[in-house]
Order: sequence, then structure tokens, then C-alpha cells
Amino acid sequence: MSIVAKIKILKQPTDSSWLKLAIANLDTILLDHSHCERKAAGVAINMMFRYPSFHKLVRQLTAIAKEELEHFEQVNQWLDRRGIALAPLNSPPYGAKLKAQIRHQEPDRLLDCLLVSALIEARSHERLGLLGEYCPEPDLAKFYRSLMASEARHYGIYWLLANEYCETNAVQQRLDELSSVESEILANLYPEPRIHS
Amino acid sequence: MSIVAKIKILKQPTDSSWLKLAIANLDTILLDHSHCERKAAGVAINMMFRYPSFHKLVRQLTAIAKEELEHFEQVNQWLDRRGIALAPLNSPPYGAKLKAQIRHQEPDRLLDCLLVSALIEARSHERLGLLGEYCPEPDLAKFYRSLMASEARHYGIYWLLANEYCETNAVQQRLDELSSVESEILANLYPEPRIHS
Repeated sequence: MSIVAKIKILKQPTDSSWLKLAIANLDTILLDHSHCERKAAGVAINMMFRYPSFHKLVRQLTAIAKEELEHFEQVNQWLDRRGIALAPLNSPPYGAKLKAQIRHQEPDRLLDCLLVSALIEARSHERLGLLGEYCPEPDLAKFYRSLMASEARHYGIYWLLANEYCETNAVQQRLDELSSVESEILANLYPEPRIHS
Repeated sequence: MSIVAKIKILKQPTDSSWLKLAIANLDTILLDHSHCERKAAGVAINMMFRYPSFHKLVRQLTAIAKEELEHFEQVNQWLDRRGIALAPLNSPPYGAKLKAQIRHQEPDRLLDCLLVSALIEARSHERLGLLGEYCPEPDLAKFYRSLMASEARHYGIYWLLANEYCETNAVQQRLDELSSVESEILANLYPEPRIHS
């Protein structure tokens, strides 16, 4: 799991039990991945609505939202090819638990939103990387690898935006807290196969 | 105003008083236009969240959302060029009044959402067309004309989706009601320059 070591903002690497669960349920993982891409686009657009005058944030999140929508389309083409219908899927607690960490007062809220998104993107990057390396279907593995570069760019952008709008020490301290929480949430494997089980 | 006659779903053409107000306030219209493109992307994504299993709707609205984000970027480049900062701008009552027409029970809600979006896109198409024809700055006029084809496609897609998921007579009857409301809302010019004044 060589990828993990490079993802500096994550406290703990993904356990191999997640990879086993994911590989045994590739169709469900694809469907969940589709929901994740749509949600990621929604999160970026919501932030653009909340901070409409933040020039750099708006520009960068527009680019991210466009890219998430493109990935959403690509994942949906995979669903089509495998005859998997778009269907609702209950979410693992990961997203809601991270969202609960976001403080309500500004500028804390902005900082927390940016760092939570950075962590989610970093974890997605790590897990898609694992699928890219260990997925037994070569074409699908190749697809996962093709997504990795932009997932890495996304978490970098969220982190850079945090440093653009907030004081460096505050960013570092809060990232330290939130990344601990993020790894704790994943310490117990969620029993259903999801990108963020 | 030759464009108007072609836009069959609008009951009343835009009054020349709107065009006069818009042309006298091109910077504010550009800023409002930026907000409109972001909101249009948000509306498409919200519908994708509400109907995640509606295959055709999800696919078509993904394409619309991507295009709205591209227009958003293009309008923002115009703002940059003219030294206009991204800033909040209070909305005219148009959007809220149309939204108030959306019924809460399904399948009425889906039908109303699709038709309200169709009407907003049709009106935007008409008004960008007027700016494309009468804007005194040739480059900006050309930009407005360049957006028209996709605005027309967007209202066509919303209308086709309404017919895909709802019974044709119901679509026609509800469109007749909503398009009357839409024209009534615009019967009195909102005093501040906006795309939907």
C-alpha cells in the first residue's frame, strides 16, 4: 500500500479489511462512487453559494465541481456497461460524522468546511488508488488509476484555499484535530461496502 | 425583437423598458448574470439529488450543470476584464415567485420544477438574445449571442424531461398556467437592473 505513505494529511492508512470488502462488492462500490462524485460536486457548489465574493475560492471550486461532474458521468458509464441501475444507497456514517465537526461561527466554519473536504478528497484518493492497484478487473483498475491525479489535485486545492483564507497555524492545528477524527471514524469498518466504509 | 416570436413557451415578450434598463447598466447585468449561471448549476444539481434514480434526468441535468458552470466561468472572465469584483447582489422577486408555484406533492413537484426551470431558461434565452442584438459593445454582444444556443437547448431539455416523466396533457396544462404566471411577474419592471427584472 505504497500510495498511503504519500498522503500526508491522513493520520491512518486504510485497513486491508476495507479493500477486501470493496473488491468483493465492486458493483456496489461503483454505485456508491457515483453518489460520491455527485455529492462532491454539490459540496463545491454549496461553498460557492455561501462565499460568492471569495474570488479564488469561487474560481477553484468551479473547476472542481466541473471535474466532479465529469467523473460522475464516467462512473455512470461504468454502471451502464455493467447493467447497474442508478439507485439510492444508504450512506455510511463517515460524511455525517465529519460534517458534525464543522463549527458554526465564521471564520471557523470556512476553515472546517475546507479541511473536511480536503480530508474526504484525500481519503478518496487513497482508496481509489488501492482499487487502482488491487482491483482484479484490469479495465476497471485502469479507470480508478485515471481518477487519482485529479482527486489528489482536489485535496491540494482545498488545503491551499484553507491557507489562503486562514492563518497557517490555525490551519495546521485544526487539520491535526480533524484528521485524527477522520481516522477514528474509519477505525471500525462499516459493514456495508462503500467508498468511505 | 424577432427572437421572441420563436420562443413558444413564453406568453409575453420582454418589454423594451427592460432592455433600456439593462443596456444602461451592463456591469450590473454581468454581475447578476454570473449569479444566474451559478444558481442554474445549483438547481440542476439539486434536482439530481432529489431524483437520483431517474436515469435520463440525471444524465441530462449533469450535462446542463456542467455547461452552466462553464458559462459561469466565462461570465466571471468578463467581470475580471471589466474590473468588477464578485459581490453579492440582491435578487429580483422573479425566482422566488416562480418557486412559490411549485407544488409539494409528487409527481406534481417534479413536473413543476421542470417547467419552472424551462421557463427561466426560455426567458434567459430571450433576454440574452436581446442583449446579443442590441448591446452597444460589439464584443459583449457577441458573447451574449454565443450563449444563446445552449440556453435554448436547456429549456428544450427541461420541457422534454417533463414530457418524459409526466403525461403530455398534464404538461401542457401546467405549462399554460405557469407561463401565464411567469409573464405576469415580469409585467411590472423591477426597478433594479437584473437579467430577470
